[in-house]
Amino acid sequence: MKAAFMYGAGDVRVEDAPEPTIQAPTDAIVRIVRSCICGSDLHGYHNMSASDQGRPMGHEMIAVVEETGADVGTVAPGDFVVVPFVSSDNTCVFCREGLHSSCVHVGYYGQIGASGLQAELARIPHADGSLVVVPGINPDTADEAMLASLLSLSDVYLTGYHAAHVGQVVPGKTVTVIGDGAVGLSAVLASRSLGAERIILMGRHTDRTDLGLEFGATDVVAERGAEGVARVMELTGGEGSHIVLEAVGLLPAYEQAYGIVRPGGIISRVGAPQYEDAPVGFGSLFGKNARLAGGVAPVRAYLEDAIGQVLEGSINPGRVFDRIVTLDEAPEGYAAMNDRTALKVMLRA
Amino acid sequence: MKAAFMYGAGDVRVEDAPEPTIQAPTDAIVRIVRSCICGSDLHGYHNMSASDQGRPMGHEMIAVVEETGADVGTVAPGDFVVVPFVSSDNTCVFCREGLHSSCVHVGYYGQIGASGLQAELARIPHADGSLVVVPGINPDTADEAMLASLLSLSDVYLTGYHAAHVGQVVPGKTVTVIGDGAVGLSAVLASRSLGAERIILMGRHTDRTDLGLEFGATDVVAERGAEGVARVMELTGGEGSHIVLEAVGLLPAYEQAYGIVRPGGIISRVGAPQYEDAPVGFGSLFGKNARLAGGVAPVRAYLEDAIGQVLEGSINPGRVFDRIVTLDEAPEGYAAMNDRTALKVMLRA
Repeated sequence: MKAAFMYGAGDVRVEDAPEPTIQAPTDAIVRIVRSCICGSDLHGYHNMSASDQGRPMGHEMIAVVEETGADVGTVAPGDFVVVPFVSSDNTCVFCREGLHSSCVHVGYYGQIGASGLQAELARIPHADGSLVVVPGINPDTADEAMLASLLSLSDVYLTGYHAAHVGQVVPGKTVTVIGDGAVGLSAVLASRSLGAERIILMGRHTDRTDLGLEFGATDVVAERGAEGVARVMELTGGEGSHIVLEAVGLLPAYEQAYGIVRPGGIISRVGAPQYEDAPVGFGSLFGKNARLAGGVAPVRAYLEDAIGQVLEGSINPGRVFDRIVTLDEAPEGYAAMNDRTALKVMLRA
Repeated sequence: MKAAFMYGAGDVRVEDAPEPTIQAPTDAIVRIVRSCICGSDLHGYHNMSASDQGRPMGHEMIAVVEETGADVGTVAPGDFVVVPFVSSDNTCVFCREGLHSSCVHVGYYGQIGASGLQAELARIPHADGSLVVVPGINPDTADEAMLASLLSLSDVYLTGYHAAHVGQVVPGKTVTVIGDGAVGLSAVLASRSLGAERIILMGRHTDRTDLGLEFGATDVVAERGAEGVARVMELTGGEGSHIVLEAVGLLPAYEQAYGIVRPGGIISRVGAPQYEDAPVGFGSLFGKNARLAGGVAPVRAYLEDAIGQVLEGSINPGRVFDRIVTLDEAPEGYAAMNDRTALKVMLRA
């Protein structure tokens, strides 16, 4: 089968790879309907050391089940499913609390030895916990917009939703979203779906912030750093933003976040932090009782509800995809996202 | 009048100082009933550079009102009051939300030019917002234990309470308190008052942890660092603590906190951080969706309720005071807290 591998910075190759097989009775094998490239894949694209062993890429997919292990009971061959970006058993103490990304059996795709999901076929561990069936949809005849929205539930939209959820977005609060990438725009849409009326989007790419406005942003701030902070403070009457959703993962975005968060407010981060240490003392969080939340999104916890919203048409998160290429063309897809000529690239077989 | 000043590390002097006077019509002048020394006063006692100008010390007091400015309406000469450790107007947008420590008129005692509260008399800005009357108590005849508990509401107990409150302590959650100082022990008592059943106290001074056990701690962990983390993980069945109240303010305590917090749990800090940068990335908070909360306690928000609890005898937070000296003896009080022969020192006129 074909699958995408990264061999170093800027070096993604689509190669023939052995087909995955059932290894545990809780496994399933799925076949790609659509996959895509994540902003977080670009971190390796920027800084991965060259290696002889390619890293299997991809962690987002909608798929059709091909084969199931003996212990799999909730999905069967032929089912059309969404694959959350981490696998989980959906039964452990953390899953029962809705924190599937801390499952005691949590699995990350794309590690050496595990499936990457930018591939024709993939092995899904703990398939009962990790796959959710999309009822009543035939992927061969569904329209492309519907497939895009379902695919976005694998990671990007529900990562944005997680930011808004743990940021405690409710009507009446001012929300500021830092970052006009696909996760940031998803956070705008999720905040809107949770009732936020005032949503300030910080981003400087007009084509992207335009989609943010369609998703529900009420203000766009193109300035960054101290100027961006000053502009948000001005927009909030000097008080700051009740909730700040940080969807970038770089230190300057975090610094912007504590600069604009209101006393007693919440910074919710979902951009995978490319830093470990950051300011948290008197001058940043402590002095104003600002709270810090967020982390790896437990997509699985939100998935059934979100599938329902997509099927009924109340949200259209798939609009973040602005290019479709074949799996063979994945290297061009990475290049397009890297040079920002594409917001988010979908892959089809 | 007599007042305590710090001139450098280890150098506290009680000197004659000009009596404070009304400077704004919203001011009041109060006379000491009891004051005390705070753990945070010891930071300067350790590292203040020598100076010719003494810094007025102290930010905790119970007092009798001597004089009020023309615009003061809620307190009058003769009233017995608790003085919260920051002054606030109690009317601004942040005060109305219960975040008096972010009041637009917030004032810190002990700055050059402001009163310190380790003094016979003090000027209280925004007296209507900053002073709360203790009803039905005559400070001249009240017993010492009652005065101690009322004094603890000026800072130490309600700082511990703030940790538990923003840490979202509720019945059924495991709470771990890091630090057996007076704030840590107060956090134990507050957690108990909020219904926590399992309270792990991390501290290694037996006389202090013994009081912690009386306040409601169910387990004591004397180990620190990696050993302390391992011990708490063992006590929590490998899952970690839902809530961690960090009452120290030093980086090793914070590191211990993220080591023991459960996935999805909350670290609530009230020990004034003696660091600005700290780990918050994938390896500390983000990977397990741990949340960070806390800051400067808005004592004023909690004060009426807490006075009621003290008067009815349902809490006895004044037990953290284990030594009383005269204001003249403040230097000995600092030395005793510094060498840990006293937990918390009360000052009387």
